Amino acid sequence: MYISKSFIPILKNNPSEAKIKSHQLMLRVGMIKQSSAGIYSWLPLGFKVMKKIEEIVRQEQNKIGAQEILMPTIQSSEIWKESGRYEDYGEEMLRIKDRQNREMLYGPTNEELVTDIFRSSVKSYKSLPQLLYHIQWKFRDEIRPRFGIMRCREFYMKDAYSFDISDKEAIFSYNKFFLSYLKTFKRLDLTAIPMAADTGPIGGNLSHEFIILAETGESKIYTDKRIFEVENAETKLEENSLENLRKKYEQFYSVTDDKFNKDEFESKVSEKNRLKTKGIEVGHIFYFGDKYSKAMQASVDLPGGKKDFVKMGSYGIGVSRLVGAIIEAKYDHKNEIMKWPISVAPYDVSIIPMINKNDSSALEKANQINSQFIKNGIDAIIDDTDENFSSKIKKMNLIGAPYQIILGKQIDGDLLEFKETGQEAKKINLNQIIKIIKEEKEKI
Amino acid sequence: MYISKSFIPILKNNPSEAKIKSHQLMLRVGMIKQSSAGIYSWLPLGFKVMKKIEEIVRQEQNKIGAQEILMPTIQSSEIWKESGRYEDYGEEMLRIKDRQNREMLYGPTNEELVTDIFRSSVKSYKSLPQLLYHIQWKFRDEIRPRFGIMRCREFYMKDAYSFDISDKEAIFSYNKFFLSYLKTFKRLDLTAIPMAADTGPIGGNLSHEFIILAETGESKIYTDKRIFEVENAETKLEENSLENLRKKYEQFYSVTDDKFNKDEFESKVSEKNRLKTKGIEVGHIFYFGDKYSKAMQASVDLPGGKKDFVKMGSYGIGVSRLVGAIIEAKYDHKNEIMKWPISVAPYDVSIIPMINKNDSSALEKANQINSQFIKNGIDAIIDDTDENFSSKIKKMNLIGAPYQIILGKQIDGDLLEFKETGQEAKKINLNQIIKIIKEEKEKI
Repeated sequence: MYISKSFIPILKNNPSEAKIKSHQLMLRVGMIKQSSAGIYSWLPLGFKVMKKIEEIVRQEQNKIGAQEILMPTIQSSEIWKESGRYEDYGEEMLRIKDRQNREMLYGPTNEELVTDIFRSSVKSYKSLPQLLYHIQWKFRDEIRPRFGIMRCREFYMKDAYSFDISDKEAIFSYNKFFLSYLKTFKRLDLTAIPMAADTGPIGGNLSHEFIILAETGESKIYTDKRIFEVENAETKLEENSLENLRKKYEQFYSVTDDKFNKDEFESKVSEKNRLKTKGIEVGHIFYFGDKYSKAMQASVDLPGGKKDFVKMGSYGIGVSRLVGAIIEAKYDHKNEIMKWPISVAPYDVSIIPMINKNDSSALEKANQINSQFIKNGIDAIIDDTDENFSSKIKKMNLIGAPYQIILGKQIDGDLLEFKETGQEAKKINLNQIIKIIKEEKEKI
Repeated sequence: MYISKSFIPILKNNPSEAKIKSHQLMLRVGMIKQSSAGIYSWLPLGFKVMKKIEEIVRQEQNKIGAQEILMPTIQSSEIWKESGRYEDYGEEMLRIKDRQNREMLYGPTNEELVTDIFRSSVKSYKSLPQLLYHIQWKFRDEIRPRFGIMRCREFYMKDAYSFDISDKEAIFSYNKFFLSYLKTFKRLDLTAIPMAADTGPIGGNLSHEFIILAETGESKIYTDKRIFEVENAETKLEENSLENLRKKYEQFYSVTDDKFNKDEFESKVSEKNRLKTKGIEVGHIFYFGDKYSKAMQASVDLPGGKKDFVKMGSYGIGVSRLVGAIIEAKYDHKNEIMKWPISVAPYDVSIIPMINKNDSSALEKANQINSQFIKNGIDAIIDDTDENFSSKIKKMNLIGAPYQIILGKQIDGDLLEFKETGQEAKKINLNQIIKIIKEEKEKI
């Protein structure tokens, strides 16, 4: 793709309205455009990143046997009155009257709607467990939307729901998502720590937040540094293996401020292992038993002929928020260098030819290289403008393809100036470059 | 996938509330579930079909150089006041007040929002043409939603927008979408006829609807049968080639009832070529010049130093509606047999083993076959229940995988009973079956 043909409206300077670096970069490099307070349009560069995140989230949901559905954005108030949350939810719920004056709302979450689908479809324990998820726009009418897409009003979220016949089975489902979340964030090149959390308006008594470390995060966190060493590579999708993984994490003190207790922290964590910092919540999982199934009469036939309310959990990942979270974790703000993980990068590599009025040989070379990239499934962006070389490099450092090829005046035989974005350049030939990029892409 | 593990809630009988066959089948076989009037949840079977349609639509947009973005569902009323459509739109627009009492709305279409994005991003003719599209939920508050997802309130639509400096360039963009739409519908195994149409609330003076023939359609159509013979295989993405394609279509009389004139029809079309029937609108394209760019001050610098308002068109495909439209075109309602085009089928093939209490050998055979299918990228659904054979076949005829393998009591060496859904069975071996299905999938 030529940058001159792409729709990437880049700003010369950081926009003054943006307070955190993800918001700055996303506006600066034309990933998003605000359309009204807390509501954004996703332009091609931001859209590509979000879609790649969405696909990784989807694959990891499918791997644990969750099935994808799609619930609508606009819901009837009736089911929310059944669960009792219509009044509880307060002003964050966007309430709507349709032309027939019926009370509707823009779904902030979907426990009620998925319970309604379940109760009308599933009658027997034989069909359990059921894990259902969808990836859909949600709306929460934040009183003070801020930080770009990190705390906005219309946001894109994966939410999953589990249905089981017993607490024991339900915890097994919970733990499947626990593992799935760790794997999802790993593929996004993020270290997310699961932390015991309060359940808030969702309810229930078991809950973990998944937090990535970032100074700009809104969550205060208190943890034991050894938690970063827990591995899940050997964990299997089996009840005991999953339970052991959760125990390995839970042996380390790790909470957000709503559960923080200073004495407990200091008695459980030796001074050298204490970490107090800030983080960004990128996932949240809940087990709440029959809170909704009881209120909404969602029961199944049990083996002996009795009926019981199903035990449910819910599991969220902020897909649009993750775009910002990755920037917070990866963007070198001081040097204005972004390097996207290749799993979600808008382009795999940028090609930066020096172009003068009388000399387009470097652009021709760029085209030749790109035709080889296309054959190898590598997605490149070429700066085909005649801007000066340093401003081209600056621009590509912001766009953040993880690799760069720099084509200056003189080209040294077969050798090309190639670098990981933000690192030193080295001279290697095109076949080697293709090999390096393909190997990285295969690891995704 | 075992049918016992899938979330496919099948009804024994046709639901009485459904008046047309797509609505009947979609409820019957658990593709959708109504959540409130004109608003539906998509269950796994329906979701899979819709996602495959979406991906084909996306690929054909990308092929003509359109770039994907994503605009939000909730918009500010301000831009609609700029264009003058806020009052015009009437009660079909879902109007919303947020907690700050600001006037918002759920976007029924996006001319205003995309023009706002364009005007703040593009300043020069050098960046044109620009073709932008998104695939997003829309809401139109129909007074009488009906026919399931065919005339519902919340629906999934691809809408694209073109920006050019002159009428001539803009017609070139228009014609790119014209071709793209023909190719899109062809890949869905639909014959869509482009018809001159009124522009309605979008405005402008050039417009085509793309209509597929169906007795249950809401559009009356009058056409010359020879229009079905027009070919586009040789058409290139070049100005003249595209213009010739449109002329080839336009030589034949072909209109919906809003443009119908009896005398014209009878004078232009000989009696034997006249076709009066009904159809379903699956796409609609518009050219409206500077209608929005002028009202919203979206101009670019021209070569000579002057400025001018950009010339715009818009281009819609009803992605969720297409699921129903394909059923209307393909479902043999009398015999209760659905055969999805393999390009969008929820499964490529269904495997139907006869299972008795004491004999699960056919199920084991099904599993062996499926492991070969998985290796070859073929997606199968296995009926692993112990229901009787005829009800299993009936169920699979409704689910509509385009191929079926029937595993009865006796298995004849290597030979399997294989059929195209709704056709006669033949006995061939597994390798031949794999070859047939793979060849069909490669044609997509």
